[in-house]
Amino acid sequence: MDDKQKLTYRDSGVDIDAQDTALERIKKIAKSTRIPGVLSDIGLFGGLFTPEPEDPEGLVLVASADGVGTKLKVAQLADKYDTVGQDLVNHCVNDILVQGAKPLFFLDYFAAGKLVPERLASVVEGLGVACRENGCALLGGETAEMPGLYAGEDFDLAGFIVGSVRRDQLLPRGVAAGDVLLGLPSTGLHTNGYSLARRLFLEQMGKGVHDRVEELGATVGEALLSVHRSYLKPLKALLGSPEGAGVTALAHITGGGIPDNLPRVLPEGVQAFVDSRGWEEPPVFDIIRREGRVPEEDMRRTFNLGVGMILCVRPDAVDAVAAHLRASGEKPFPVGVLREGPRGVVYA
Amino acid sequence: MDDKQKLTYRDSGVDIDAQDTALERIKKIAKSTRIPGVLSDIGLFGGLFTPEPEDPEGLVLVASADGVGTKLKVAQLADKYDTVGQDLVNHCVNDILVQGAKPLFFLDYFAAGKLVPERLASVVEGLGVACRENGCALLGGETAEMPGLYAGEDFDLAGFIVGSVRRDQLLPRGVAAGDVLLGLPSTGLHTNGYSLARRLFLEQMGKGVHDRVEELGATVGEALLSVHRSYLKPLKALLGSPEGAGVTALAHITGGGIPDNLPRVLPEGVQAFVDSRGWEEPPVFDIIRREGRVPEEDMRRTFNLGVGMILCVRPDAVDAVAAHLRASGEKPFPVGVLREGPRGVVYA
Repeated sequence: MDDKQKLTYRDSGVDIDAQDTALERIKKIAKSTRIPGVLSDIGLFGGLFTPEPEDPEGLVLVASADGVGTKLKVAQLADKYDTVGQDLVNHCVNDILVQGAKPLFFLDYFAAGKLVPERLASVVEGLGVACRENGCALLGGETAEMPGLYAGEDFDLAGFIVGSVRRDQLLPRGVAAGDVLLGLPSTGLHTNGYSLARRLFLEQMGKGVHDRVEELGATVGEALLSVHRSYLKPLKALLGSPEGAGVTALAHITGGGIPDNLPRVLPEGVQAFVDSRGWEEPPVFDIIRREGRVPEEDMRRTFNLGVGMILCVRPDAVDAVAAHLRASGEKPFPVGVLREGPRGVVYA
Repeated sequence: MDDKQKLTYRDSGVDIDAQDTALERIKKIAKSTRIPGVLSDIGLFGGLFTPEPEDPEGLVLVASADGVGTKLKVAQLADKYDTVGQDLVNHCVNDILVQGAKPLFFLDYFAAGKLVPERLASVVEGLGVACRENGCALLGGETAEMPGLYAGEDFDLAGFIVGSVRRDQLLPRGVAAGDVLLGLPSTGLHTNGYSLARRLFLEQMGKGVHDRVEELGATVGEALLSVHRSYLKPLKALLGSPEGAGVTALAHITGGGIPDNLPRVLPEGVQAFVDSRGWEEPPVFDIIRREGRVPEEDMRRTFNLGVGMILCVRPDAVDAVAAHLRASGEKPFPVGVLREGPRGVVYA
């Protein structure tokens, strides 16, 4: 084992701390642009704006911008472009869902060195599939050909979503020590950790996207391109039901994993105690951990590790919430509990 | 002159026709995602969505996505990053302004191979400056580090804006033959034509961004980075005044120039007759035309040529509209008239 290279997220070129520093400066600038109607600071999953600042039950618009990250490079290698479109829409839908919002409309930004119309159309087909599944209008977008900025057939893809929620239905609401954490399974890496995953599978393990890996029961491309799922259907049904009143918060587990995403919905003095024995991790993560000798801390800060969405639930409502989710075809599992302590995440 | 290379937009690697083909396919997909509330097809400057489909005076959200194009490469060469942030916000503001909307909030997408926090902060400073100037909240954004997709210190920047307008105030409204076209000056290339402009100045003419060009009265970098202006202040004042009732449409002149942008607001059977002797072209365009031996047709389809915004005005309202604009410090000029004929643009 000693001859193997040890991979961490920083090694693969992504510096999460540098991002955090820049984020602080951005927050200050954003504050300087506040106008009436703004209900949020930067740092939540989605930004909040109400055109009706006087109405406590008024409409709140929830907006989010997202990218697909270097999952795009896997799509390029596999010459398969529709699924990244689905990834992007579903990612955006989940990011505003965690504040209680249902999607209204979506716009995309597609930029390439050389615009290949069939490829663009394939990406947009994927956007369309996911927009229809989520009841969200594909309202517009920008397509840019930028020779000299993107190399060869490289391209980037970003998305922007706006949803709405009644102001008195906003999440989180009343998160407290004692709340139980329920998880919903991810479908794989979703859209995070691809710099590391690509290095591991495609460089260190020397695989091609079409190579089958027995432990995955799939090719590398199939496993890495599995679609980032949307949690809208089961959670919209839950939040619209009496059982939904027991949900105090939702957290979409994306880049930064549980340690970076769950605290976003926690008040000061509340800590998440997470026990990862509560769920089964899909094999793709253990291959990366084992073959890349990735420290557990990096695994947790890089990947969702099988938990795509976490619900914070009042303890008296857990059974009813879990039953409602199961009735929607979901397989909720225990992730841990909230307890008093410094705001953050502690592992068992 | 014969030894000079003749540059057209297609030569510089941008294929506008390929973009148009893809756009048709995208329109079909977008149609398949329509939900109640969608008021527009793709192809307008901004997409229209109303959360209040039953109310003829209800709120309409106008959303647009934009990029800065390869003006970013000039910013990189000049090591100056704040102005592209302003460019992006102002571009977005103008794109929804032409439908009568005032901006509510803006989100950005910033992706780089290697995130340089000072650079990101400088870009966001520029976003902040323009958001404050336009009374628009910087509500959020996404920052992505994507080693392997962006080379070296390359980065891309996209923006998403949402504004609102009362449904009965939407533009265009009643555009007809006989309307007079008034133009408002651009501040330079704005955010279009940079692939061609960079090739001309930096390759064919062999200039550096810090080289002064006497005819420009500025360095190449200064001229090419001049900020894409916002037309919000004078046009918001105009549209909110009695004189504003005479405005039937606004067209933001971006990529594709007048021939591609003005027809977007014209009904079938109405043609724009444009006489470019009505305004003075900033010298940067003539340098490109002359030194690059660029055919006039390409110049017109690539650059704004000094016209950043066009107003369609009822003939009986032209004097009052022009006077109102002058009172706001603007220098409106005649661009042409609308007349009966196949929808499109004809030059004198």
